[in-house]
Amino acid sequence: MERQKRKVTVQEVGLRDGLQSIAAIMPTSDKKRWIDAEYAAGVRHMEVASFVPARLLPQMADAEEVIAHALTYPDLTVTALVPNLKGAEKALAAGVHRIVAPISVSAAHSAANVRKTPVEMVEEFGRIRALRDASGKCGAVTLIAGLSTVFGCTYQGAVPLEDVRDIVLRVLDAGCDIVALADTTGHATPGQVDQFLKALMPVAGGKLSIAHFHDTRGLALANTIIALQNGIAEFDATLAGLGGCPHAPGASGNVAIEDLVFMLESMGYDTGIDMVKLLACRSILSEALPSETLYGALGRAGLPKGYSTKQSAVEKAVA
Amino acid sequence: MERQKRKVTVQEVGLRDGLQSIAAIMPTSDKKRWIDAEYAAGVRHMEVASFVPARLLPQMADAEEVIAHALTYPDLTVTALVPNLKGAEKALAAGVHRIVAPISVSAAHSAANVRKTPVEMVEEFGRIRALRDASGKCGAVTLIAGLSTVFGCTYQGAVPLEDVRDIVLRVLDAGCDIVALADTTGHATPGQVDQFLKALMPVAGGKLSIAHFHDTRGLALANTIIALQNGIAEFDATLAGLGGCPHAPGASGNVAIEDLVFMLESMGYDTGIDMVKLLACRSILSEALPSETLYGALGRAGLPKGYSTKQSAVEKAVA
Repeated sequence: MERQKRKVTVQEVGLRDGLQSIAAIMPTSDKKRWIDAEYAAGVRHMEVASFVPARLLPQMADAEEVIAHALTYPDLTVTALVPNLKGAEKALAAGVHRIVAPISVSAAHSAANVRKTPVEMVEEFGRIRALRDASGKCGAVTLIAGLSTVFGCTYQGAVPLEDVRDIVLRVLDAGCDIVALADTTGHATPGQVDQFLKALMPVAGGKLSIAHFHDTRGLALANTIIALQNGIAEFDATLAGLGGCPHAPGASGNVAIEDLVFMLESMGYDTGIDMVKLLACRSILSEALPSETLYGALGRAGLPKGYSTKQSAVEKAVA
Repeated sequence: MERQKRKVTVQEVGLRDGLQSIAAIMPTSDKKRWIDAEYAAGVRHMEVASFVPARLLPQMADAEEVIAHALTYPDLTVTALVPNLKGAEKALAAGVHRIVAPISVSAAHSAANVRKTPVEMVEEFGRIRALRDASGKCGAVTLIAGLSTVFGCTYQGAVPLEDVRDIVLRVLDAGCDIVALADTTGHATPGQVDQFLKALMPVAGGKLSIAHFHDTRGLALANTIIALQNGIAEFDATLAGLGGCPHAPGASGNVAIEDLVFMLESMGYDTGIDMVKLLACRSILSEALPSETLYGALGRAGLPKGYSTKQSAVEKAVA
């Protein structure tokens, strides 16, 4: 019974997407504690750093040290974000398993964020791919095209599906291993996710496998259900919903990993993650970042009465 | 195109379930403003009062006056909750279109709440049905069995599906017109909703058509998607997520009607409700109940850029 459960990958991206969005700088020792605690809870995929110049993003100045720590766990898949070829060089040298290079589908967002067009970012992606191939790590390092502002943009509003399809085709042509779709600004709705994935999954030939939803309008989990039904197999989230550029006071950004795992497990998916241990990880953030708001419904409401008992019963039945 | 959209009913239950859960008493004039504003926004189903003795629930002392006001709108379906036969007499006299009688599936919750067993509540439901039939309003007044604590209970923890099925069969036997399933304590998960509905829909022969989800663990909208996929056609919600017995500090209860409508419309369902006007209704609560927390992701984040433009475009295309 237990072995027949469908596996879904949940990636913790708070160490990158969470920390880069806040003013505070988390000490390296706390980042290591965070990695340790989530690893102990069963999390096996983490995006732990980005290779952006430290003068622009001091939160990521310790990227190499954090990655080296994460790599001490042999079965932890370690991902880093790289904005350009120079970042990719550093990420390859640091020994990560996966590199994600962001490409904004919204021209307005891309111009504001990196002063390049989406097509120029795809060209840089092609150079990153050539670098990866030339490094001899072609089989060892997975290259992810992280498409951002896929479902809407705070600058330009709606992002046409045709624009997304165009960039998907271009990154596939540029040789990406995986396409990830990110709702960078919290615009995605279940109807739109369904429409976009039904159009894009046939185009991407199995390489479109990661979704990154924000909970800005409370729809991250609903969007996740629709994405699961369309074949998405990996989801990004952050501890306590940290970060993710919420652009309205009180609004949340990234979906809380606790809420995501709770829902997936309730649906019979196997995330490999222990809910009780995962919830306990929140204390690392409240201690290390006392001025940050912690989001997440499970963190507020707690687990339902009898939840841990039920889990034990399942474990006993399997044992 | 527009006319082919599937219709889903969203019922505002804040005037009953929201107001009964808070300490403050909303003036009758504010209740009328609330009804007026949501009617103007397109809401056509409202549960506006309960007939519980005023000494127990002073918030509902003006039930008759509020119902009379709601009934001035000829196409507004007006529902009242009745805990017993005496309440049903009053509701029938007040002229409501629908009566909902709650029956707790959890024996522990039923004992704590009404000092009766679930089966005794079904017996009372049978007497209410006989009264309705004898009143000559059989065709005019719909009788809803509102099954509560269906998906779990803060007293007893898990509620077995067998117990729910048993009560569903009993209320069908007692002659109910509609069965509503309520997640009174915020325990429902998408996996469980799917399991329960797949077991109960065939049993209920089309009479199981209403779901009432709480957002305590952030799953109300995800549960709604699963319920829609299983054929549920009507959903309860409250303005700004007011009330609904949140049992943990900071945790929400009822799902916010704004969030629910936003999601349903994004999925191509026709709720008949104008999002911009609906969001504006929140100000009635913030003015009339200044000490209450207003929930809802849309209320915090606002509508996405271009949303109203898009709506206007749709309206133009249809006109």
